[in-house]
Amino acid sequence: MIETDILIIGAGPTGLFAVFEAGLLKLRCHIIDALPNIGGQLTQLYPKKPIFDIPGYPTVQAEELVNNLYEQIKQFEPGFTLNEIAQTIDKQEDGTFIVTTDNGTKHHANAVAIAAGLGSFEPRKPPIDTLSKYEEKGVEYFIREPEKFKGKKVLIAGGGDSALDWSIFLADVAAEVTLVHRRNEFRGALDSVEKVQELKNQGKIKLITPAEVIGLEGKDKLEKLIIEKEGSKLEKEVDYFIPLFGLTPKLGPIANWGLEIEKNAIKVNNALDYQTNIEGIYAIGDINIYPGKLKLILCGFHEATLMCQSIYNRINPDKKYVLKYTTVGGVQGFDGTVKEAKKAVVKSIE
Amino acid sequence: MIETDILIIGAGPTGLFAVFEAGLLKLRCHIIDALPNIGGQLTQLYPKKPIFDIPGYPTVQAEELVNNLYEQIKQFEPGFTLNEIAQTIDKQEDGTFIVTTDNGTKHHANAVAIAAGLGSFEPRKPPIDTLSKYEEKGVEYFIREPEKFKGKKVLIAGGGDSALDWSIFLADVAAEVTLVHRRNEFRGALDSVEKVQELKNQGKIKLITPAEVIGLEGKDKLEKLIIEKEGSKLEKEVDYFIPLFGLTPKLGPIANWGLEIEKNAIKVNNALDYQTNIEGIYAIGDINIYPGKLKLILCGFHEATLMCQSIYNRINPDKKYVLKYTTVGGVQGFDGTVKEAKKAVVKSIE
Ligand SMILES: Cc1cc2nc3c(=O)[nH]c(=O)nc-3n(C[C@H](O)[C@H](O)[C@H](O)COP(=O)(O)OP(=O)(O)OC[C@H]3O[C@@H](n4cnc5c(N)ncnc54)[C@H](O)[C@@H]3O)c2cc1C
Ligand SMILES: Cc1cc2nc3c(=O)[nH]c(=O)nc-3n(C[C@H](O)[C@H](O)[C@H](O)COP(=O)(O)OP(=O)(O)OC[C@H]3O[C@@H](n4cnc5c(N)ncnc54)[C@H](O)[C@@H]3O)c2cc1C
Repeated sequence: MIETDILIIGAGPTGLFAVFEAGLLKLRCHIIDALPNIGGQLTQLYPKKPIFDIPGYPTVQAEELVNNLYEQIKQFEPGFTLNEIAQTIDKQEDGTFIVTTDNGTKHHANAVAIAAGLGSFEPRKPPIDTLSKYEEKGVEYFIREPEKFKGKKVLIAGGGDSALDWSIFLADVAAEVTLVHRRNEFRGALDSVEKVQELKNQGKIKLITPAEVIGLEGKDKLEKLIIEKEGSKLEKEVDYFIPLFGLTPKLGPIANWGLEIEKNAIKVNNALDYQTNIEGIYAIGDINIYPGKLKLILCGFHEATLMCQSIYNRINPDKKYVLKYTTVGGVQGFDGTVKEAKKAVVKSIE
Repeated sequence: MIETDILIIGAGPTGLFAVFEAGLLKLRCHIIDALPNIGGQLTQLYPKKPIFDIPGYPTVQAEELVNNLYEQIKQFEPGFTLNEIAQTIDKQEDGTFIVTTDNGTKHHANAVAIAAGLGSFEPRKPPIDTLSKYEEKGVEYFIREPEKFKGKKVLIAGGGDSALDWSIFLADVAAEVTLVHRRNEFRGALDSVEKVQELKNQGKIKLITPAEVIGLEGKDKLEKLIIEKEGSKLEKEVDYFIPLFGLTPKLGPIANWGLEIEKNAIKVNNALDYQTNIEGIYAIGDINIYPGKLKLILCGFHEATLMCQSIYNRINPDKKYVLKYTTVGGVQGFDGTVKEAKKAVVKSIE
């Protein structure tokens, strides 16, 4: 059982920043995310794109913002359960919660912060009957450990940025990379399209277009793909099939937690602390809804901050919290590090 | 008469960022501030200090944050009335407002955003009878145009960072710089104290401590100061006297605008749009109060954003606003500049 003060569901910008505000209040956090990496939509949907409305950043790349947020919170040593979906929640008699993932990992926390964005991201899967049979036996929807493709034959399907970028990346790693797309045209950053063209010319990426994977074969694991290209069928021996057709967010199991839901989002008390109808469960960032709600990153930051104050009062009903500016009080990490402004000196001039 | 969509009172971080959010909605802003420069508390009280809780900035110097905010908003060409205090407000029959400063400058706007922080900053003045007589005739509380001290005899009073830093700065500009402080000890950044010691040793700064300025003399303008040092009086010919004893914020004239005030702050509807009890007047940032309010920079950013949406609806009651991410829609400045993400291409690979 993982023990923590605040269990955060979702490692998007809102969930990440909550760790910092909690840390200032000496509360520890643990984060669950369905994805293998942190950053939520920013990492999954537009890592290389600039964002222009983060206050104080005339421009910042999504990926860079996530890195900076992690840099900012790491003093507070958040725990992570990645690659798992928060599935069930059980309120204990003492008002605390146990949250269990699809993998069976159990988390015990005083308060739960749902920062689940648009829901947990699930890969869009091509409609091939035998696909699920080979999951974890050659079919992959994410590239988590690139080393595992070393010396292997890989086939990627898709026509967008992910398909292009991973083909380029794996061209240097795998024994063979084949890219299949149902059109001749790819849609992505100009650089990426040009790079794939170049690697194709060099024979480092094989291209099969316009074509579609329509079948998978193999005994204990994936061995062969059946591809349809302009009316005829061809076969291709592979070790891995990586269909990259994007991700769709699903509110998923959270929809059954007894929370008030409106327009696929969780209703909260925006006049106070972004708490849901269940005491001790909060919802912050894109996942919540209230009058005037804007699904913006900067709003999630504010919501996370007010929520942490409320959780502090919940956990320490008898203590009176006095706000201390970080500039004045510094930041004391759980890892023993301290950030602080240079102290003024009192010194005579002779 | 200055015409604008949103008149913002206060050029602190909250007021500045409001310009950006308004600009995204094609609304123009004009800002009034009592101070000669922008940035509010950050510029006036701790320009060189690091802030650790701006989301996405593991650390940022207050001054740098203000510069970045200005960089971010300048595409939207905000107007400024600096050095003037917003004094009166008159609601017109058509629901618009006229705000007049202590200097008589009139501003006409559809909506008013009070982002007045702790109030307008006023210099703490030493209790010398004749002081006010020489204001603008040799007595200065801010250093606005350093060139005006060129070749002049200047006396600075005070023992903190401002007194130290401006003494150092003016040592290179003025004909003579004298620093008077009622103790021998100064309180400030170690660098600054050491630098003043050095300049004193070089004869570039004259030091008179422990001492106090107790009188001002001169016919049409300041000519001489009377200083008390350890029981005896001395005279000093000067062109300028700059007492730097800090600033105190005063809610000031805004207190009489008919707004609901609680604990020196303005009550707002935090469940929707941070509007005050007077329709069309909003209060954002440190100046407002609501249950759970935290006087933090990041909260002001969120409040400014929701407020701008509400003002958009007020000004365009018939248009339906659809949120567009800056990453997707780019940012079109009023100055003709455009910031946008690199467009994806659709391109075939042969
Ligand atoms: C193309 C694009 C451009 C954008 N541009 C901007 C912009 O310019 N400015 C701006 O402010 N915003 C922009 N946004 C919106 C911004 O990305 C979101 O507001 C932000 O990501 C919300 O952060 P979050 O932390 O609330 O949620 P998310 O970033 O959505 O993260 C939520 C996380 O929760 C996880 N999760 C959900 N349910 C579960 C579960 N049951 N178990 C485990 N994990 C779960 C998900 O896997 C996900 O990682 C843009 C969005 C897109 C798609
Ligand atoms: C030493 C110190 C350290 C701090 N550290 C942090 C920190 O680490 N993190 C954090 O989030 N916050 C910190 N703060 C608080 C932060 O500075 C404030 O939250 C922030 O400045 C509020 O911004 P604002 O724009 O609302 O108001 P302000 O910055 O106060 O600006 C308001 C402006 O309005 C002007 N004004 C007011 N009335 C009038 C009028 N009638 N006419 C014309 N102009 C007027 C004032 O002159 C002023 O320039 C700190 C504050 C101090 C003093």
